[in-house]
Amino acid sequence: MTTQHETILRGAEDPGLGHLRIATEEAFCPPELVGMWQELLSAGGDLDPGFQSQMGFYLRSAAERPKFIFERLQDLGALRLADMDATGIDRQIISLTAPGTQIFADAATATSVATLANDQLADACRAHPDRFSGLTAVAPQDPRAAAEEIRRGHDELGFCGAIVNSHTNGEYLSDPKFWPILEAAEALDTPIYLHPTTPPPSMIGPLLEAGLEGAIYGFAVETGMHLLRIIRSGAFDRFPRLKFVVGHLGEALPFWLYRLDYMHVAAVRAGRYASIKPLQRKVSDYMRENVWCTTSGMAWEPAIQFCRQVLGAEHVLYAMDYPYECVAAEVRDQDAMALSPAEMKAFYQTNAEELFGLPGPGR
Amino acid sequence: MTTQHETILRGAEDPGLGHLRIATEEAFCPPELVGMWQELLSAGGDLDPGFQSQMGFYLRSAAERPKFIFERLQDLGALRLADMDATGIDRQIISLTAPGTQIFADAATATSVATLANDQLADACRAHPDRFSGLTAVAPQDPRAAAEEIRRGHDELGFCGAIVNSHTNGEYLSDPKFWPILEAAEALDTPIYLHPTTPPPSMIGPLLEAGLEGAIYGFAVETGMHLLRIIRSGAFDRFPRLKFVVGHLGEALPFWLYRLDYMHVAAVRAGRYASIKPLQRKVSDYMRENVWCTTSGMAWEPAIQFCRQVLGAEHVLYAMDYPYECVAAEVRDQDAMALSPAEMKAFYQTNAEELFGLPGPGR
Repeated sequence: MTTQHETILRGAEDPGLGHLRIATEEAFCPPELVGMWQELLSAGGDLDPGFQSQMGFYLRSAAERPKFIFERLQDLGALRLADMDATGIDRQIISLTAPGTQIFADAATATSVATLANDQLADACRAHPDRFSGLTAVAPQDPRAAAEEIRRGHDELGFCGAIVNSHTNGEYLSDPKFWPILEAAEALDTPIYLHPTTPPPSMIGPLLEAGLEGAIYGFAVETGMHLLRIIRSGAFDRFPRLKFVVGHLGEALPFWLYRLDYMHVAAVRAGRYASIKPLQRKVSDYMRENVWCTTSGMAWEPAIQFCRQVLGAEHVLYAMDYPYECVAAEVRDQDAMALSPAEMKAFYQTNAEELFGLPGPGR
Repeated sequence: MTTQHETILRGAEDPGLGHLRIATEEAFCPPELVGMWQELLSAGGDLDPGFQSQMGFYLRSAAERPKFIFERLQDLGALRLADMDATGIDRQIISLTAPGTQIFADAATATSVATLANDQLADACRAHPDRFSGLTAVAPQDPRAAAEEIRRGHDELGFCGAIVNSHTNGEYLSDPKFWPILEAAEALDTPIYLHPTTPPPSMIGPLLEAGLEGAIYGFAVETGMHLLRIIRSGAFDRFPRLKFVVGHLGEALPFWLYRLDYMHVAAVRAGRYASIKPLQRKVSDYMRENVWCTTSGMAWEPAIQFCRQVLGAEHVLYAMDYPYECVAAEVRDQDAMALSPAEMKAFYQTNAEELFGLPGPGR
């Protein structure tokens, strides 16, 4: 995690490489927000158990990994650029780390945190336009303010998408009350990155009990479920040009495409759930047409090639998951995949440029 | 689901095929147990919400699919054999359908249901020894009685493994109080099939809310978590020759091998959870050496080939998931996979024969 055994040249420095490396799920956290989370933890009370486990560990542990991560999350300058240089990353697409604004019960507080985070990130992107791009943080607690912030992020701050850190106090974007957010993203043709967080109290029980609520399993379960909820809600029928990005190779949903199609049709045909309506397309069609998957935390050729096979190569793109993962050997492993130079360029560079509109005006 | 557009010859009838087709995750339910479930549903009260959703649908719906399924679940004779003939299945390995005994709070009731189910299934296997094999149903509520029932099933009834339908009232086999069950299975060298059920009340919230608690997603989440809990508990270090079988291509855990290894090591190194101890081997080693995956409900070549690639071809074997799935075209699809005749024979026949000890004394 923390040790770099080698330095990898960036694409911009290595004429032989033939492409840039754009990392698309890279996290930061304003120091002010770290302080607010610390306050929540200290106050105790009726705290979300996932947050308590996750941030109680990251913000209080003396172990090497959490210290490394939280030092780097709060850096948008020299430390981050040095890590990018050491691991061969030309550009990071940076977003507010989980749970971001979404742990706050109060919408005004959450919205002000989003504004703060976006202003900080925009400053960093302006300072390093050749290395940093950003996603707009939002507070779904106030859907109309979130939609307006996506517009501000896109039009005024030069951001290339938005980030939602999965559920908001146990609520999901499948609920039409959040659809102003989806509407704004579609109207601006800017993607929404759906990033994991720990499952809500109504789901976390046996995961937390076994230490499985985080990156090892619970994140994927929560986020895969969230994307399925969005698909089954008919959101992509209502907003057919809407684009979602999901990390960790689609949180395993690509593995399930066949079964998702079979069981969704079976449930609709049997009229099992009043809330589950027929969709215009197959579940797998939305996965292949409205969803892009990144390789964050999944630097493993068999799974990457599987996703390229079943989703299409243009829907699979590179991410590191910095600073949660910062391993030069993982870049080397992905460099060594059995891909042609053109396929490698799409994977590391042009898929991201097209999806996020890079480089665009002010990007 | 219900319509057979063609009849496929069994391997025993088709000298050109070169192998039998053994289906390894095939379900039944004694009519007496259906009656007990009906009583639970009618009594209402503090009923498990997953059971209420699942069996409230299957036992009360007038739709075609649930009627088809529950008629066939209760048949161990002509109807089942006709379906096997029509879909080219030589042998079913039959097991008690979820939630089986595991919905009952009272251990004595649960144990008596296991005995009843095993006696009925053994009669059917004796009546059709060339077509039916069986797995021993157990009531984990009484772990010592369950261990003794596995012995009786193996030694006296001729069964070739045991079935556990995931959690038992929210408890998991990772808890050492259940380890007499694992100890008995290892001592008899007989595998345990870990079959899905709906997640427990402490996990089902947002899945149930969105109609995702069953076969479309919740089953996989519950059962994948259960197997991860077993692996991380150190059960396979304590019982190194223990064999587990998991359906639906390993409930997507094969997709996660890289990340499971990475995150387990990271959690142990950081000392994040007092309960998570170092294991003797990597998480992926247990998946490759102690776990076998079947293709129930996953008749899809890309995912099957992926699992063969990352687990080893000898750890992937055929299942239909009858009567929840009974589709001749799915057999045809698996017949058409890019496998050599020897690989096809292993997939459909000899992997199952070796894992389950077929044909053995009385099997």
